[in-house]
Amino acid sequence: MKGEAKKILQGNQLAAARLIRLLEDAEPKGIQILKALYPHTGNAFILGLTGPPGVGKSTLLAHLITEFRQRDLKVGVVAVDPSSPISGGALLGDRLRMRKHTEDEGVFIRSMATRGHLGGLSKTTKEAVLVLDAMGYDVIVIETVGVGQDEVEVAESVHTTAVVSLPGMGDEIQAMKAGLLEIGDIFVVNKADKPGADDVVDQLRLMLDMRTGSDNEWKPPIIKTVAIDGQGVIELVDAFSAHRQYLVETGKFDERNVEREYQFFRRLVMEMAADKIFDNLDDLPAYNDLITNLITRKVDPYTAAETLVKGIQCKI
Amino acid sequence: MKGEAKKILQGNQLAAARLIRLLEDAEPKGIQILKALYPHTGNAFILGLTGPPGVGKSTLLAHLITEFRQRDLKVGVVAVDPSSPISGGALLGDRLRMRKHTEDEGVFIRSMATRGHLGGLSKTTKEAVLVLDAMGYDVIVIETVGVGQDEVEVAESVHTTAVVSLPGMGDEIQAMKAGLLEIGDIFVVNKADKPGADDVVDQLRLMLDMRTGSDNEWKPPIIKTVAIDGQGVIELVDAFSAHRQYLVETGKFDERNVEREYQFFRRLVMEMAADKIFDNLDDLPAYNDLITNLITRKVDPYTAAETLVKGIQCKI
Repeated sequence: MKGEAKKILQGNQLAAARLIRLLEDAEPKGIQILKALYPHTGNAFILGLTGPPGVGKSTLLAHLITEFRQRDLKVGVVAVDPSSPISGGALLGDRLRMRKHTEDEGVFIRSMATRGHLGGLSKTTKEAVLVLDAMGYDVIVIETVGVGQDEVEVAESVHTTAVVSLPGMGDEIQAMKAGLLEIGDIFVVNKADKPGADDVVDQLRLMLDMRTGSDNEWKPPIIKTVAIDGQGVIELVDAFSAHRQYLVETGKFDERNVEREYQFFRRLVMEMAADKIFDNLDDLPAYNDLITNLITRKVDPYTAAETLVKGIQCKI
Repeated sequence: MKGEAKKILQGNQLAAARLIRLLEDAEPKGIQILKALYPHTGNAFILGLTGPPGVGKSTLLAHLITEFRQRDLKVGVVAVDPSSPISGGALLGDRLRMRKHTEDEGVFIRSMATRGHLGGLSKTTKEAVLVLDAMGYDVIVIETVGVGQDEVEVAESVHTTAVVSLPGMGDEIQAMKAGLLEIGDIFVVNKADKPGADDVVDQLRLMLDMRTGSDNEWKPPIIKTVAIDGQGVIELVDAFSAHRQYLVETGKFDERNVEREYQFFRRLVMEMAADKIFDNLDDLPAYNDLITNLITRKVDPYTAAETLVKGIQCKI
């Protein structure tokens, strides 16, 4: 075990931050360290916290961390939300709440959006989760904003997803729920002291009852919270625990771990295979002809891709 | 030229809708038709309209269509936004405004979110744009929500991106601009009759002046609009025209077309190569051993992927 990997296994947060930065930059040295850490991963309970901007995810997260710490659990946070407190975009109150946690050795918070590059977020996020997992954090929360490809990919890689919404968000944001509805294991109606909170709960319940899917055994709870003063946070943590227990008892906890590793592996194969295929092509006249025909629209991209892939052979 | 492709080239909207549905379902028949259409693409001016939910993109879009039609341009719309009017999540006023357009032969609007599947949106979106391009629409607008991998990929594939924001959106949404700032060619401050509009314009101008990038020749304009009654829409369409002219004069219009085709081709190669690699592996004992070691964490996903990719050979 090399020095950096050892430090990270011992919980050294500076070493972990250095490694995550290497991984963000796709540095081979980072991958080498992550390989050494890998056998020590697979123990964390991984949560997703998602919802549109402005619903109070950051404030809720600050209180969630407090409650997890009360229960003697170490908490890691990977914030994929560009508006998360770490990146400086949040309200002063959240920054103060978070500062309390940053002085706690049992809490480690990393934002994946500070470097300004948005591409490849889901890959780097998964790598950061592996690092925090190896460090021994019991609970890892991935905070994402909105709904899109990133969120769906992140949801596929966590054990439990909580979707946060608000009363009175207006038609446009209500419509987003159609996408978020599919990925939620737990639903949170925040700012539940505002008018219309019970209406949102009723609407969600109705939509959830109509939701079709193979996983009919788990009935997603809808938790009302007032994040600003911590109301409902204990109930929310209880709901996370209940879902974890459900996953363990049904064997789905291990299934999701296996599926996550397999998908990550498959994604790596895709990227490495593409690099290998394209790296060796530039000097070949046949490839240059193909690209010329593509650019001049003499050949369509599907036919061009089929031509190239036809020449690929794979043995193991 | 087969029947379906011919109908689409003649502008038949029902045939186009059928084809886009086939492409959403990844049906080989859809790809065959798209191949036939491909030589007829590459003529449209492709715009991206993006911003957080609630900023009034749909209302703005309805007025934009009217103004483009005034200028005798045929307009296609691909709405990647789940809250777009087509999917039924929008305000009644927008639906009425859109209905007027749906009865106009020179307008074609497709939503990519009605089917409820969120994965692979950016690929299907590009395919839908190709279909509309082949149909002869002069302007194609891609409407997306929020900021994420999808938006960045969409921004990479359009000629001109307009980013819409609002006065007084609060800290959290302001922070999102950091991501949106990078991809905007034109910025729109909608609801500019609300207090604080000039402050947002000033902030944006300041942030844009600090924006670093190779493309220093184009100074992104900031347009104030009141979408609900169409104020500023003429100026916005003028800004789109000015950016188009800038792209054409500097050769960037063709460059972006070429880059878009190349990236689409590269993406297809990645997907087809992965399918080819994995399709033939399941029966191989060596592969099954590799997966067993992966699942039991005896081998890490990087090493497993390297092992597999090592055996790939590519000739053309």
